[in-house]
Amino acid sequence: MTEEKPEQRKPSFRKRLYEIIFEADTPAGKAFDVALLILIAASVLVVMLESINYIQIRYGELFRQLEWGFTILFTVEYLFRLYATKKPLAYAKSFYGVIDLLAILQTYLSLFALGYQQLIIIRALRLIRIFRIFKLGHFLQESSVIVNSLKASRAKITVFLLFVLLLVLIIGSVMYVVEGGTNSNFSSIPKAIYWAVVTLTTVGYGDITPVTGLGQFLSAAVMILGYAILAVPTGIVSAEMVFQIQKKQHTTQVCPHCVREGHDIDAVFCKYCGGKLEA
Amino acid sequence: MTEEKPEQRKPSFRKRLYEIIFEADTPAGKAFDVALLILIAASVLVVMLESINYIQIRYGELFRQLEWGFTILFTVEYLFRLYATKKPLAYAKSFYGVIDLLAILQTYLSLFALGYQQLIIIRALRLIRIFRIFKLGHFLQESSVIVNSLKASRAKITVFLLFVLLLVLIIGSVMYVVEGGTNSNFSSIPKAIYWAVVTLTTVGYGDITPVTGLGQFLSAAVMILGYAILAVPTGIVSAEMVFQIQKKQHTTQVCPHCVREGHDIDAVFCKYCGGKLEA
Amino acid sequence: MTEEKPEQRKPSFRKRLYEIIFEADTPAGKAFDVALLILIAASVLVVMLESINYIQIRYGELFRQLEWGFTILFTVEYLFRLYATKKPLAYAKSFYGVIDLLAILQTYLSLFALGYQQLIIIRALRLIRIFRIFKLGHFLQESSVIVNSLKASRAKITVFLLFVLLLVLIIGSVMYVVEGGTNSNFSSIPKAIYWAVVTLTTVGYGDITPVTGLGQFLSAAVMILGYAILAVPTGIVSAEMVFQIQKKQHTTQVCPHCVREGHDIDAVFCKYCGGKLEA
Amino acid sequence: MTEEKPEQRKPSFRKRLYEIIFEADTPAGKAFDVALLILIAASVLVVMLESINYIQIRYGELFRQLEWGFTILFTVEYLFRLYATKKPLAYAKSFYGVIDLLAILQTYLSLFALGYQQLIIIRALRLIRIFRIFKLGHFLQESSVIVNSLKASRAKITVFLLFVLLLVLIIGSVMYVVEGGTNSNFSSIPKAIYWAVVTLTTVGYGDITPVTGLGQFLSAAVMILGYAILAVPTGIVSAEMVFQIQKKQHTTQVCPHCVREGHDIDAVFCKYCGGKLEA
Repeated sequence: MTEEKPEQRKPSFRKRLYEIIFEADTPAGKAFDVALLILIAASVLVVMLESINYIQIRYGELFRQLEWGFTILFTVEYLFRLYATKKPLAYAKSFYGVIDLLAILQTYLSLFALGYQQLIIIRALRLIRIFRIFKLGHFLQESSVIVNSLKASRAKITVFLLFVLLLVLIIGSVMYVVEGGTNSNFSSIPKAIYWAVVTLTTVGYGDITPVTGLGQFLSAAVMILGYAILAVPTGIVSAEMVFQIQKKQHTTQVCPHCVREGHDIDAVFCKYCGGKLEA
Repeated sequence: MTEEKPEQRKPSFRKRLYEIIFEADTPAGKAFDVALLILIAASVLVVMLESINYIQIRYGELFRQLEWGFTILFTVEYLFRLYATKKPLAYAKSFYGVIDLLAILQTYLSLFALGYQQLIIIRALRLIRIFRIFKLGHFLQESSVIVNSLKASRAKITVFLLFVLLLVLIIGSVMYVVEGGTNSNFSSIPKAIYWAVVTLTTVGYGDITPVTGLGQFLSAAVMILGYAILAVPTGIVSAEMVFQIQKKQHTTQVCPHCVREGHDIDAVFCKYCGGKLEA
Repeated sequence: MTEEKPEQRKPSFRKRLYEIIFEADTPAGKAFDVALLILIAASVLVVMLESINYIQIRYGELFRQLEWGFTILFTVEYLFRLYATKKPLAYAKSFYGVIDLLAILQTYLSLFALGYQQLIIIRALRLIRIFRIFKLGHFLQESSVIVNSLKASRAKITVFLLFVLLLVLIIGSVMYVVEGGTNSNFSSIPKAIYWAVVTLTTVGYGDITPVTGLGQFLSAAVMILGYAILAVPTGIVSAEMVFQIQKKQHTTQVCPHCVREGHDIDAVFCKYCGGKLEA
Repeated sequence: MTEEKPEQRKPSFRKRLYEIIFEADTPAGKAFDVALLILIAASVLVVMLESINYIQIRYGELFRQLEWGFTILFTVEYLFRLYATKKPLAYAKSFYGVIDLLAILQTYLSLFALGYQQLIIIRALRLIRIFRIFKLGHFLQESSVIVNSLKASRAKITVFLLFVLLLVLIIGSVMYVVEGGTNSNFSSIPKAIYWAVVTLTTVGYGDITPVTGLGQFLSAAVMILGYAILAVPTGIVSAEMVFQIQKKQHTTQVCPHCVREGHDIDAVFCKYCGGKLEA
């Protein structure tokens, strides 16, 4: 992408730092991204292992030290990012800037007596940093098809989710009336709605199940409905992806001789009049 | 849409009321729809919270008052609708007219000693009113693709559901014979059919599970069958959506000779009258 | 279809009987089919209700009488079918002929002391007769798309199912080794394979679940795998249906002027050269 | 395929052996493949039955003898393969070569006191040999569409799986905080992540379920999210398959000027050299 570099002078330290930290198309930039990815993954692993009781008891002290090690490294990275970019405020206010700050702030806050559990959520935010790695390389082109398809079908999926929400409210209310009397699991409408979601999405925990004959009959109807409904979002996304892929397959190049479109990406001559296409 | 308004005279109150209440393309109409949406959502929330026992005990009196507040507002809205429309009877007999009436009637009926639980269903009907909001705006175009796809695949999905129904009857009968003797959960064919639906739709509560070796083997076969069957409705809807989206891709070019649309992107001549299309 | 009837003479009773029983395009034929459908559905309902213990105790005698009533009616129908067709043996040996025979034979066999439960299966076979009703009408065209799509993807789905079978065998064996020692639910490879099917198809009863850390980790991997695999049969059927529907959208009509294909079904003139298409 | 055989001399024993063992297009080669398939299936069945306790007790001695019989036959086959091929080392180091060796080695190793359970995994490897049978015949063409579609969507599915992994980590962490205090099933983040996978993939065992109101609300949100997400891999594979099938629809017409294929069905001129295609 940056094949031509008109500036022959040695770039400043700040500029080089920017290239390493924020870009991924130089060897140093790639190495930095990979190192950061490993660091993030390791810090997440520590958070996870720390939550297992018997491991925490045995290695608690080690985890505390690692935690501080990660925090210091991430703090240095954060400061470097602020220094390297030309608009530090814009970075600090960006989505990733806030995540980066929260990810280090939480360890410092733990020095003061904040609740342990609230901190875990903030620590989990570190995970979101991993998304940055997506910038790394050739995945970009592939994920653009997914993202474009989802963007194109966003309005349709919103309508669909609203419809599912209404359906779940109505099914839950009906089942509350049908099962509520004899089945303590359907003791309130919100619980019945929770059941309706579990059933309609075909998750089916089985922690709440109908026991009356009518309830079981209605449940069966809901399941078959869910079966049919499941087809809708899949259909939406499939159709959009077919369209996105087809769009990629065809150039919008127009034949200069017969002014017709629809040529394949590898076409050299017009398939309709045989005239040469322009490069 | 209604950019040109030939009538220069001030519209009558009744006409303005009609525009506000029934249409959504004026600022006042939109505001009315949004206010109505919030009101409906609030009234539904009250019904839901009321069903939770310990909340009902504490806030029961407040809920009763809110309920009457909503009912009076909806009654006013209903009367305004009857007044604003030119054909009050047509509105009253329409789907939404009946829903609107039921939604207010149920509170008045509660003054007389009707069963509490039956009323909950009628109250749930209020939810259906939310669908009216779909008229609001740009969702219309998107949902038309979904609706068209579902309409186009209605006959196919009906055939599919009939097929699933038969399958479930047969699987249920067979499992009743196989498991019925040793497993009290398969004590009748309807119960076994309920199990078959739970399994085939991949919901899988686990409240009824096979215990014999043969039963588990047959279940596994049913699951893999369900896996393959699940592909059919999704395939139907996906294919229809691909077709619906492609139809939208057709040029909106109008033939200058016969003024008809729907020409392929590579068409040179009108397919209806044979006249030459403009480039 | 049979618009022209060259024979002016009154058709024989046998021929009329044939038209009523075997065909569905005369009013009498349709009425016969609908009556038969109701009869079949009623007989199936009786079998189902009979299996519920407390209903059987109360209405057992009534069910026995109804059973005999259905059997006599179906026997008459079977004999009529044999009489009406020109090739009785061909009918008797056809798929539906065997089903029809089994459906009446089982009641007669119950006079002799055959096991009750085996008879239930044969009774369930009656359900298959309902499939005959599919001949009724306009569903035919719709189901032809489904049937064609499934036929076209048969080989692909077979390969897929074989692949799933192998996967399930391997996953089951691995989980037997991992969980077998500590978890009595994974006490044999067949049980572990049953679990693998339940998990991979996303049914998830929960009657058998992993308890060791490694087992839960592997299960999670299997689930995500199942998630991705689920896409394959759906993709196969979707793609075939897209193709089947597209094929229906385009006539294979060739323009008599420029000899090109691909005209829409409503095209009157060739979209390439503007020449008139033949009707 | 090999209709013309220029060599008139009788092929050597080694060459004939190669054709029988490694190829499947002669009658003898097909017979060998089918015999091998039956042998593999039988040996796998024995491993499975052996794991069921009460069968093992009764038929243990028989199984031991069958096991040795299979091992000797597979050893002979392995030696023949080494002898028949021109590059024995290449075969021995190939994927199937290693599998073949492991499949026989495990029985010999059992003479020495290796752990029984570890051997089961190696025995399960025998199953992989069944894949070799896929070479048999006309399935090849069909599975090539599946394989091509999966290959083409590999990058997209990798991105998707990474996304799911991140989602599951974040959901698990959040639920650990929400439910961890009151629900012993969410006692660590890894357990909560296991729950998140079970829920998001709609498997839904029900061995771990939320009990707090907030937890159930979040679960419902996760399920509906999973519902929408399920559409993505299906959409990817569907779209690729539509494309793969369409590619097959392209005419196999060869340009008479530049001898290249892949022309659209409506192409008049070669898109590569501009020469006129024959009608």
